[in-house]
Amino acid sequence: MKELIKKLRKFADERDWEQFHSPKNLSMALAVEVGEILECFQWLTEEQSKSLDSETLKRVKEEIGDVQIYLARLADQLGFSPLEAAEEKLKQNKKKYPIEKVKGKAKKYTELD
Amino acid sequence: MKELIKKLRKFADERDWEQFHSPKNLSMALAVEVGEILECFQWLTEEQSKSLDSETLKRVKEEIGDVQIYLARLADQLGFSPLEAAEEKLKQNKKKYPIEKVKGKAKKYTELD
Amino acid sequence: MKELIKKLRKFADERDWEQFHSPKNLSMALAVEVGEILECFQWLTEEQSKSLDSETLKRVKEEIGDVQIYLARLADQLGFSPLEAAEEKLKQNKKKYPIEKVKGKAKKYTELD
Amino acid sequence: MKELIKKLRKFADERDWEQFHSPKNLSMALAVEVGEILECFQWLTEEQSKSLDSETLKRVKEEIGDVQIYLARLADQLGFSPLEAAEEKLKQNKKKYPIEKVKGKAKKYTELD
Repeated sequence: MKELIKKLRKFADERDWEQFHSPKNLSMALAVEVGEILECFQWLTEEQSKSLDSETLKRVKEEIGDVQIYLARLADQLGFSPLEAAEEKLKQNKKKYPIEKVKGKAKKYTELD
Repeated sequence: MKELIKKLRKFADERDWEQFHSPKNLSMALAVEVGEILECFQWLTEEQSKSLDSETLKRVKEEIGDVQIYLARLADQLGFSPLEAAEEKLKQNKKKYPIEKVKGKAKKYTELD
Repeated sequence: MKELIKKLRKFADERDWEQFHSPKNLSMALAVEVGEILECFQWLTEEQSKSLDSETLKRVKEEIGDVQIYLARLADQLGFSPLEAAEEKLKQNKKKYPIEKVKGKAKKYTELD
Repeated sequence: MKELIKKLRKFADERDWEQFHSPKNLSMALAVEVGEILECFQWLTEEQSKSLDSETLKRVKEEIGDVQIYLARLADQLGFSPLEAAEEKLKQNKKKYPIEKVKGKAKKYTELD
């Protein structure tokens, strides 16, 4: 992740795009790319989404790449790594959703989310 | 990232939540969390989004953590790492947006995106 | 719709919120509210989403109300009605997706979308 | 709105697309189209978003049309009109955000949202 973040800084800097990369704008770019992931799955059943044809898989991978790029860039502009944020959140989630209480429960899951 | 992915597998497995984690559902969860990032920035100016108060920063960090968690989980269900996807996409972007053509141009950027 | 748009103008004006309602900001608010609709459906199967319990239905209706509010407000700031935009788009869609070509095809649907 | 909803029922019915239009799927389609609106605004300043060139305005209008179409379709599948939902929500908002308390305050607005 550190490598990626450095490359993204250089990529934006070389193109003089730093000026467009406010956290506000990056959050919008993130949402645009997530929309493109949703587009791949919107008319598929859950089962179909588990066994994508190679063309759709390729496209989803590219869109996931875009989301990761903007997520890393957004976190970097705010002074941290998205991995660090995920590790911290996961610790909170372990406390928030104790195994014995939520095991196998979608309903519970939704309510507590 | 590898560490995070392993922990997320264990987290879902222990809670018997694997059954809810189809790529289709995970893409929706991803969009929900991105919506929560947008919520933090929606009424701020770009300038304000660059200097968040500590409370908002804390919240944005948590939401970025959530997005990273679901993104890693989604990519993992499809058989790859989001970092790998990002590295590949960045290579494509370097070709797609040559420095000399797009330098400092928001307009160009949008059109080519 | 005309009635709603007038009420929304008055609502924003009375609160001096016009200053926050740039099209950019309203598009973000729209995305935030759509995220809240997705939250209601993310872990449900398609079948479950067709027969919501009364509590979830109530919440979805409120979120759909929010989306309609921001959509009407955004369109109004740009000088038109969202209904007019929908009618025009529907005409285009009729040409783009001729019945004989797309009947019953999800795949085709996705590709052409 | 009633007219639009009727036309949309006919449009889906003629194409045998009713089978794909579960509320879950329609909520995803809604998010995809909102992503396309965000795409038009992501790199613009708030000021620029207020005076779009004719090409961008045309595109935004089409995307707003798409969002209105899926919103009407989703609400219809759940048994109500999005206009009715908006009117109800607006009444709630008037109580939730009393003029004297929130006038001109973005901060307050965000917190209470």
